[in-house]
Amino acid sequence: MNRPQPVEKMVEVIKKLPGVGPKMAERLSYHILKMSHGEVERLIGSIQKARQTIKCCNICYNLSEYDPCFICSDVTREQDIICVVETPQDLIAVSKVKNYKGLYFVLGGALSPLDAVGPDDIRIDKLIKRLKNGKLSEVIIATDTDSKGEMTAVYLAEIIKKLGIKVTRLGYGLPVGGDIEYADEVTISRAIVGRTEM
Amino acid sequence: MNRPQPVEKMVEVIKKLPGVGPKMAERLSYHILKMSHGEVERLIGSIQKARQTIKCCNICYNLSEYDPCFICSDVTREQDIICVVETPQDLIAVSKVKNYKGLYFVLGGALSPLDAVGPDDIRIDKLIKRLKNGKLSEVIIATDTDSKGEMTAVYLAEIIKKLGIKVTRLGYGLPVGGDIEYADEVTISRAIVGRTEM
Repeated sequence: MNRPQPVEKMVEVIKKLPGVGPKMAERLSYHILKMSHGEVERLIGSIQKARQTIKCCNICYNLSEYDPCFICSDVTREQDIICVVETPQDLIAVSKVKNYKGLYFVLGGALSPLDAVGPDDIRIDKLIKRLKNGKLSEVIIATDTDSKGEMTAVYLAEIIKKLGIKVTRLGYGLPVGGDIEYADEVTISRAIVGRTEM
Repeated sequence: MNRPQPVEKMVEVIKKLPGVGPKMAERLSYHILKMSHGEVERLIGSIQKARQTIKCCNICYNLSEYDPCFICSDVTREQDIICVVETPQDLIAVSKVKNYKGLYFVLGGALSPLDAVGPDDIRIDKLIKRLKNGKLSEVIIATDTDSKGEMTAVYLAEIIKKLGIKVTRLGYGLPVGGDIEYADEVTISRAIVGRTEM
């Protein structure tokens, strides 16, 4: 015997979500079948509500209920400095830091030749256009520190320098609260290069 | 900055699903925001379709499009033997075995005093009622082999024996294709007790 066809279909669809394997998809499906009517309404309703209300800001490409988003609309922020991140989640992480008061730009990913993600697949053209139109003193590149993020940072830095704008990258080093014993060699090596006088 | 409120709400609801932590809920939520309209329709539609069409069979309590389900309706199956499982997923696993042609009963869980799951919280009453009404020669208990499943099996066996029906439990031993080196002591000990002549 196999699962009833509608359950099978639900498992198939849920299995396509990122990080969800066949076992997890089955578990979620049977859980959804056992949920109360109200719980299912809340699940589906929250998805539909978010899909209907969340827009992509046409300046920074962050997700927001407003376009332009409230960071881009905020004239009290420093208008001559832009922090470039890969995803809206990265933007939220950086925005929690109190000592950055500039603007943002969300690339929507990182270059990855192995996954066939080239410069045309992320918003590099849109970033360049924005940089050309604005009066900017600095672009901070805050892409991930994995190989894709590094490659993207190097690629962007080349282009941005040619526009005569200062480009910086977030500093490397030991994570705060970390144990040196468990830090990898590359991180320690970068921390030595970036050592500061006490 | 925090996530936009509708995204926050979606993350909160998705986080309540089993096995989904805060990071996974965030990842799924942002993925759902990026999905195409058609993909979201398929996700929501498959959930709604399954919720609408899947019933609980009133004889065995398996999930099915039909009530009674097609196993309970199948008069060619052995009507005097019932296999008791915890969940519909367990029923599917057992039903793939070709040498069992009897009927089933889905308890809907296992006894677990620590989680405050007692005999009234799973379908023990309904099982007893069915056993009393039928002409049964054997009940095979196929609950999980963890402590909750074991406790449930022992509890059920006591009751069923009093009804004058033979009770059996699935055999313990080494899983087929397994490496003895990695088997735990309890499993090996059970395999020795259940050794068979060659």
